[in-house]
Amino acid sequence: MYVILVYDVNVARVAKVLKIARKYLHWVQNSVLEGELTEATFRKLKHELGQVIDVKEDSVLFYVLGNQRYTTRELLGVKKGGEEWIW
Amino acid sequence: MYVILVYDVNVARVAKVLKIARKYLHWVQNSVLEGELTEATFRKLKHELGQVIDVKEDSVLFYVLGNQRYTTRELLGVKKGGEEWIW
Repeated sequence: MYVILVYDVNVARVAKVLKIARKYLHWVQNSVLEGELTEATFRKLKHELGQVIDVKEDSVLFYVLGNQRYTTRELLGVKKGGEEWIW
Repeated sequence: MYVILVYDVNVARVAKVLKIARKYLHWVQNSVLEGELTEATFRKLKHELGQVIDVKEDSVLFYVLGNQRYTTRELLGVKKGGEEWIW
């Protein structure tokens, strides 16, 4: 499954969230990471993030694309992520 | 088509980008908006945003879901957007 992660967390926790998320996904732009995950790695990612965020204040949103074929991505402006997007 | 917009723009331009984006989409969390658009309104949104961002510095990413059926959304933490998500 292809996962798009978008986070909106307290600045004090951004570094921790980013460090965890980058183990599994590649950085696309501020507060956005993407990548192909198995069910197991997706569970691990959610578990690890759950340990560091404040669930009453922070928000981490996952869009899980069952089938990438139906999703296209368009960019306006500069491409920030270093990694090539694997579409 | 269902569109997820994620912006990473200079703080000086966030208010303008948000004002435009909110005309077409509903706010989900910081730097993320979503909503159902026609081709025409999607073109208008991109055109208007193109007038206010600095394409050499800012980045606005659109994920266009041709078919929402293949996409699920999961939230970790607090739900920030006010509008109910129309899935």
